[in-house]
Amino acid sequence: MPTYKLTYFPIKALAEPIRFMLSYLNKEFEDVRVKKEDWPQYKESMPFGKLPVLEVDGKQLHQSTAITRYLGKQANLAGKNDWEALQIDMAVETLHDFRAAVAGFWYDDNEETRAKKKEVVLKETAPFYLTKFNEQVGNNGGYLANGALSWGDVYFVAVADYLSFMLGYDLFEKYSNLKTLKDNVLATPGIKSWVEKRPQTDL
Amino acid sequence: MPTYKLTYFPIKALAEPIRFMLSYLNKEFEDVRVKKEDWPQYKESMPFGKLPVLEVDGKQLHQSTAITRYLGKQANLAGKNDWEALQIDMAVETLHDFRAAVAGFWYDDNEETRAKKKEVVLKETAPFYLTKFNEQVGNNGGYLANGALSWGDVYFVAVADYLSFMLGYDLFEKYSNLKTLKDNVLATPGIKSWVEKRPQTDL
Repeated sequence: MPTYKLTYFPIKALAEPIRFMLSYLNKEFEDVRVKKEDWPQYKESMPFGKLPVLEVDGKQLHQSTAITRYLGKQANLAGKNDWEALQIDMAVETLHDFRAAVAGFWYDDNEETRAKKKEVVLKETAPFYLTKFNEQVGNNGGYLANGALSWGDVYFVAVADYLSFMLGYDLFEKYSNLKTLKDNVLATPGIKSWVEKRPQTDL
Repeated sequence: MPTYKLTYFPIKALAEPIRFMLSYLNKEFEDVRVKKEDWPQYKESMPFGKLPVLEVDGKQLHQSTAITRYLGKQANLAGKNDWEALQIDMAVETLHDFRAAVAGFWYDDNEETRAKKKEVVLKETAPFYLTKFNEQVGNNGGYLANGALSWGDVYFVAVADYLSFMLGYDLFEKYSNLKTLKDNVLATPGIKSWVEKRPQTDL
């Protein structure tokens, strides 16, 4: 059996989809959480100087989405054919567009431009994307695509706490189909037990 | 035979990888180029209000990377197994990290923050990523991954003009392995003839 070692910061954010997928697959993994002050001593050894990194039998994998898709294939959560795989990929890439907009204000350290961007995100971007996603999940039986659970759903729900934290509100609250999506993902046994035992963090 | 209609702006940027892949596959496609002033009348009808959109037999597909990966599978340019597919995905996602940094200054309309971000990109981010990519291509026989041509290579070369335009210099010039990668992609017959006949645009 391969050994898994995941390295990230002490938050959910972009590592949580990987933690969810490993848990779904019932894989044991070492969950290394690097404190901000220790990061400089790790950075050099990471591909392209970023986290999360998942080591599989010592081989370094990077990029949150690529890793989650790969694990999703192992779990048969990547669609029944190329067309279905495409529908999942489209949804996840769109989620990243939304995340980029939210992160765009969140990580802006210029007070003035930050406030302007935040207003646009809260008034326009977030309602736009969340309404569309909510509709899409309504049309797909409680999932993002293909009427069935996929790694895309796992990604969405795992990263949602991070998005909600940046937005300042629980994104599931006003969107009932997204709430159903969340319930569907969190009901799967491996993920359920991970969420019960994981370290409690805000984002 | 399916019909293909690609809608984007009159530039290469994020549609060019799709144009490259369709050309590689020898697919005829309608290449709709929407002028900026006409965009508002199209926006509503596009999924999530964005371009590029590829219609396959009238079905709308969106998201540049998802579409290019899908076409890449049809062309057998998506790796021989899940592990190889992952290596390609990791490279492309990293390319998007780099692109996001470059676009981060390019599309910033605040003069002061733009200048600061641009300096960081030109002095640090771009040399960092391009050196790493150059090394990676050197280690993979002139390709980004797996020692073989993939849709990731096609994506990289197709989007490079856009990156070079924003950076203000030809990114292939100083990085000889990346130049080899470019030559390898542009030597494939379908892409070669597309590049010869495509509309001439800066980015």
